[in-house]
Amino acid sequence: MQQLTIVKIGGNVIDDEKALAVFLEEFSVLKGKKILVHGGGKLANQLQEKLGIAINLIDGRRITDEETLKIVTMVYAGLINKNLVSKLQSLKCNTIGLSGADANCIQANKRNKDEIDYGFVGDIEKVNASFISSCLENNLTPVFSAITHDGHGQLLNTNADTIASELAIALSNNYKVQLVYCFEKNGVLENIENENSLIKTISNVEYLNLKEKLIINKGMIPKMDNAFNALSKGVKFIQIGNSNKLLKLLIEENYEGTRLYS
Amino acid sequence: MQQLTIVKIGGNVIDDEKALAVFLEEFSVLKGKKILVHGGGKLANQLQEKLGIAINLIDGRRITDEETLKIVTMVYAGLINKNLVSKLQSLKCNTIGLSGADANCIQANKRNKDEIDYGFVGDIEKVNASFISSCLENNLTPVFSAITHDGHGQLLNTNADTIASELAIALSNNYKVQLVYCFEKNGVLENIENENSLIKTISNVEYLNLKEKLIINKGMIPKMDNAFNALSKGVKFIQIGNSNKLLKLLIEENYEGTRLYS
Repeated sequence: MQQLTIVKIGGNVIDDEKALAVFLEEFSVLKGKKILVHGGGKLANQLQEKLGIAINLIDGRRITDEETLKIVTMVYAGLINKNLVSKLQSLKCNTIGLSGADANCIQANKRNKDEIDYGFVGDIEKVNASFISSCLENNLTPVFSAITHDGHGQLLNTNADTIASELAIALSNNYKVQLVYCFEKNGVLENIENENSLIKTISNVEYLNLKEKLIINKGMIPKMDNAFNALSKGVKFIQIGNSNKLLKLLIEENYEGTRLYS
Repeated sequence: MQQLTIVKIGGNVIDDEKALAVFLEEFSVLKGKKILVHGGGKLANQLQEKLGIAINLIDGRRITDEETLKIVTMVYAGLINKNLVSKLQSLKCNTIGLSGADANCIQANKRNKDEIDYGFVGDIEKVNASFISSCLENNLTPVFSAITHDGHGQLLNTNADTIASELAIALSNNYKVQLVYCFEKNGVLENIENENSLIKTISNVEYLNLKEKLIINKGMIPKMDNAFNALSKGVKFIQIGNSNKLLKLLIEENYEGTRLYS
């Protein structure tokens, strides 16, 4: 099977013009089939504030009401996605920007509001692996924004980490998939204040242990749950770390960051 | 050769929820290969006003400065495009939303500023007919927003009528192309105040005559110039009229509106 690298970037890269330029340069020279998944960064919040639309949070989590959905559709699927695509085109990386609605790539269900009503938020139901594979076979690099749809005309805001892991799972029948999560830290740290306390490898059993000891907590838990879910469903390996170092070393096949294995 | 229908819609459909729902229903059942091209409508201006960004006009034509480009990228390529795609998906029309940057579909040059500096506005240089044809052959219906790129990382605002006619020209090597311009009138009118004064057919020679007599003037001239340019370059026929009637009758192969021929 051919190798496929799926790279997810978030706000720390998207919001920083210099870091983004370096990242895109490195991503463009990454060999083999590849997919980019991007989150939103601060731009959506900034636009929402400028428009005087209240940002609703429950337990620190953002609620996607109707106005917020319009904002994230504009910023994620429009501004950020098309800028990433055109910048990668200029680096001779033939990209195609996709939301989940395009070619029915990612269909989702509006999240059940039994406990908390998160609004127009989607939980992924199915991935159109055949269309995405046909893009890859035609040397097109998909660039996914974190917008999906429900198949009934409703767009849905969806977690970008989950999009990356669900794409990785769906494509692992056809490719040897490596999943790379770029974020603001060097990887998973023993002590969050100390970038040198990097944990180089974590197995599933070790993860449960680190979670129990509260070394891995808060925002890291959904990211790690996503990752170990993907590993249990056929994804070959997952690397998590800072985009500054991670991708450069990935190109040189000398990985840095934390490697997760099942 | 197979038939391909390219339909262009503008603000009068996009801004009117009811008219849009009817249009999409009709577009979804239109037989054969098809492409939708959409303009922007009032949404971009409304957003720009809400954000307090001045709208710069020269001779009544909008200047696309840096902030305006961000707005149109968000609204055209994001909000409108993804909503059209997801609504057509719900009608079982398998659509893919594209800007000119995606798969390098439409490359443009930033307009020369010898006379007037229109800002980030693109004149189309080349169309990637092979990628678009491969979508059509896979029963995917492209939905184009009026955003292109220059191949060097710069997005450009581009006239949607021109996108429709350039797509029609580029694809007329592979398909028997019919181009349909939907707008707010029943077609080209002898007297703009009287919807019953429809001119049913206009040849190229007749067009030059109508232009001389000022019966066709102002905003209609670039639209008609685009159309006759396309006819001279292989497009089979062009129909122009109100989306209310045009598409319904197109489905029934009993056209209404104005038909242009070379």
